[in-house]
Amino acid sequence: MNSIEPTPRATGAPRLQEGAPASGRNVLIVTAHPEPRSLNASLAGFAAAELRAAGHEVRVSDLYAMKWKAGVDADDFSGHDPAERLDVVAASGRATREGRLAADIAAEQEKLLWADAVILQFPLWWFSVPAVLKGWIDRVFTHGFGYGDKDMPRYGDGTLAGRRAMLSVTVGAREDAFSDRGIHGALNDVLFPLQHGLLYYTGMEVLQPFAVWHAIGLGDEEYRAARQAYRERLRTLFTAPPIPFRPLRGGDYTRSLRLRPGREEPGTGGFALHLRPAR
Amino acid sequence: MNSIEPTPRATGAPRLQEGAPASGRNVLIVTAHPEPRSLNASLAGFAAAELRAAGHEVRVSDLYAMKWKAGVDADDFSGHDPAERLDVVAASGRATREGRLAADIAAEQEKLLWADAVILQFPLWWFSVPAVLKGWIDRVFTHGFGYGDKDMPRYGDGTLAGRRAMLSVTVGAREDAFSDRGIHGALNDVLFPLQHGLLYYTGMEVLQPFAVWHAIGLGDEEYRAARQAYRERLRTLFTAPPIPFRPLRGGDYTRSLRLRPGREEPGTGGFALHLRPAR
Repeated sequence: MNSIEPTPRATGAPRLQEGAPASGRNVLIVTAHPEPRSLNASLAGFAAAELRAAGHEVRVSDLYAMKWKAGVDADDFSGHDPAERLDVVAASGRATREGRLAADIAAEQEKLLWADAVILQFPLWWFSVPAVLKGWIDRVFTHGFGYGDKDMPRYGDGTLAGRRAMLSVTVGAREDAFSDRGIHGALNDVLFPLQHGLLYYTGMEVLQPFAVWHAIGLGDEEYRAARQAYRERLRTLFTAPPIPFRPLRGGDYTRSLRLRPGREEPGTGGFALHLRPAR
Repeated sequence: MNSIEPTPRATGAPRLQEGAPASGRNVLIVTAHPEPRSLNASLAGFAAAELRAAGHEVRVSDLYAMKWKAGVDADDFSGHDPAERLDVVAASGRATREGRLAADIAAEQEKLLWADAVILQFPLWWFSVPAVLKGWIDRVFTHGFGYGDKDMPRYGDGTLAGRRAMLSVTVGAREDAFSDRGIHGALNDVLFPLQHGLLYYTGMEVLQPFAVWHAIGLGDEEYRAARQAYRERLRTLFTAPPIPFRPLRGGDYTRSLRLRPGREEPGTGGFALHLRPAR
């Protein structure tokens, strides 16, 4: 489960080679916080510096600094006739196929294809990404790039196959409240729509999330400890075992996309159904 | 579980009276789609007309039409010193307490306090709300309004206690893929961060979501069927039993916000832990 199989794709994007050294890779960091002196900005800067020191190339999409537009609308699809009813899926697919996506969207797609690993750095706001980062997801993962018709590969394969992804989140609450029996839900369940529904869906291998807990008014010592823990996660970005989501290919699911009976350990429920059981 | 207990609150907001007739109530519909001729816009307009015909007052926040700003930033908190580091939680709390929130935020808070029921109408994009609606959530549910310090009531109580909420979503996929064993996760699990983490968290009783499946290129007959199903859900907006989430008050959770052992039926896992077991 730890090894990464190169998947031949039409995009010509760089592929990870099994056994290749863990340096000289390309990493995209996407970050979304309005304050350049925030904990999130610090962690993004720290990650960029650590990864560069390890010999990787790093690009950063700082969405607030870029004044990233959050809302999908007709301006995303240049050439869209304003008098025509906007069917988002159809317009997105046409503009993707015909190279008519807005320049800011095309630039982010290019960065994703360039990257061998993607890190999303954000504060957990209302149990998800900040709106600006949701707008990056909504606008960049177009029809034909992030999703497509029924025959488009997904869940373990897709446009971004061969890449790795990790969420790095700051959380105001304490870890107990996001533990297996925590009232907010287990962190991996709260992040499932992102980790499974976006990152794994588009083909990426997804690492366990990195979380800084109780992140409001972090003291110097706690910040040093968080950085140390993050350093270790960055060091193993290309070697740590990913979350063992079940691929769509491989027979676990029916044609109507339901998990076949008997594939899980007895008593498994919720999103855990979509993890491969430990042997 | 079906009755709604009035909760005395400092806000002076209208409270639902047990046994009161299901008319003459206030309903806020928040909708987020860039196309005024979209299915989502149709459903929002249909709901407004149906509810008004039933004797309710309806207000609609059409976020794209309002050009709703999605990103939390210093402009949300008037009087914030631009030279000062923006601590979002602290600035949000101060501006809420001191009546210095941006006018668009204050107007939405006033609508929520006015409402007896809130409907969020949106297309499910990447397993969550569109960015513009996430920006409504991030910006309107401020510190001191939507959340607060440790002693702020939450999960079954809070600023919006006594109100009802329902998500009305359009989904491109078919229902099987969002069923109990569906690859995307069960719809109620995918919506848990919104239904439990936002709506129930702030005190509202949350109804089962209304979903239109396979919503891309819906035919006339399917649209008529969807409207008929939605009509029934609107008719029972004030009487249908809500999702039986566990309140924070009542002893099910420890001080560190973990569900106490033995509270659930054996074999329950994932978000289902936070539902009261059927008797």
